[in-house]
Amino acid sequence: MSSENRVILGIDPGTQVFGWGVVVVSCGRASYKAMGVTSLKKHKSHFEKLAAIYSSVESLIEEYGPDELAVEAPFYGKNVQSMLKLGRAQGAAIAAALRVKMPVFEYAPRRIKQSITGMGAASKHQVASVISSILGVDDVPESFDATDGLAVALCHFLSMNLSPDMRERKGSSGGGSAGSKWSAFVKNNPGRIK
Amino acid sequence: MSSENRVILGIDPGTQVFGWGVVVVSCGRASYKAMGVTSLKKHKSHFEKLAAIYSSVESLIEEYGPDELAVEAPFYGKNVQSMLKLGRAQGAAIAAALRVKMPVFEYAPRRIKQSITGMGAASKHQVASVISSILGVDDVPESFDATDGLAVALCHFLSMNLSPDMRERKGSSGGGSAGSKWSAFVKNNPGRIK
Repeated sequence: MSSENRVILGIDPGTQVFGWGVVVVSCGRASYKAMGVTSLKKHKSHFEKLAAIYSSVESLIEEYGPDELAVEAPFYGKNVQSMLKLGRAQGAAIAAALRVKMPVFEYAPRRIKQSITGMGAASKHQVASVISSILGVDDVPESFDATDGLAVALCHFLSMNLSPDMRERKGSSGGGSAGSKWSAFVKNNPGRIK
Repeated sequence: MSSENRVILGIDPGTQVFGWGVVVVSCGRASYKAMGVTSLKKHKSHFEKLAAIYSSVESLIEEYGPDELAVEAPFYGKNVQSMLKLGRAQGAAIAAALRVKMPVFEYAPRRIKQSITGMGAASKHQVASVISSILGVDDVPESFDATDGLAVALCHFLSMNLSPDMRERKGSSGGGSAGSKWSAFVKNNPGRIK
């Protein structure tokens, strides 16, 4: 698959919920493919949760054949205990991609929000609304974890594709696809933001 | 392989060095099989290190066919940043075992030292000396990371096999194999401790 026609899997691996989203890039534009959530609460042990995360990513790789993995990776947490568990969840998820030599990229939550809404301090609801509107996603899930997965996939697309000429485009992307410069789109299309 | 004749892979996954050791359990006794170290310093990116850790565990599983994985897992660190990285290293290593449905067990460093030397605050040198002497390992590596891997494998063996009648045995194990109660062995065999 060429760099102009590729699939990005975005994931938000937590210790309670695993969210994911798939974006297809074609002719310099990103389109929505799928998103979902896997609850990890039913698994009693920490290792069962890690196994569920690993197999989820493995299944997604098999189903959608992504070329790249983008991971939402918080760098700060409440304490060392929670960061160790979060790191394990991330490590298990990333391992599934590394196993098949897939390039992995990571983005901090603030960077993702900034690239999509233009505001690093945007709420999850704002991020979900902007993504849903721009990509024309009708069936927005109740949980924000799936849209978080989609958000990091889009953030990666924007980071990789923000060439100078693309930066000059403003809000030219329509429903179902996205060029770049979401903040300009949002500003120019207030009616599309729920 | 029955529970009385099994292979334990012990690992100490760090962010700079990955240490491992293999112990074979037969007739209620543990014997030394192999140990080694993989330096991760040559890998520039964090993801390359994780890929090296994952593939190391995958290769060890293929080579030694372990039935169980025992992980040395520190629960405390300097800061949240280092714990996140350590968590990722652990997560990637553990994922390789979970992928093939291998049971995983984790032990804190203090617990490992306690079970092997009888002292939770034992130095790495003390732990390495006791293990080398008891298992009759002649070629002790310069790095303690490999003996750390072997230590957690032995700790797992002791934890799983410390039945009441075994606890009553004192220092009955000879070179090349080990029953239990290392501290008693060490006490009774001072000449074997370097």
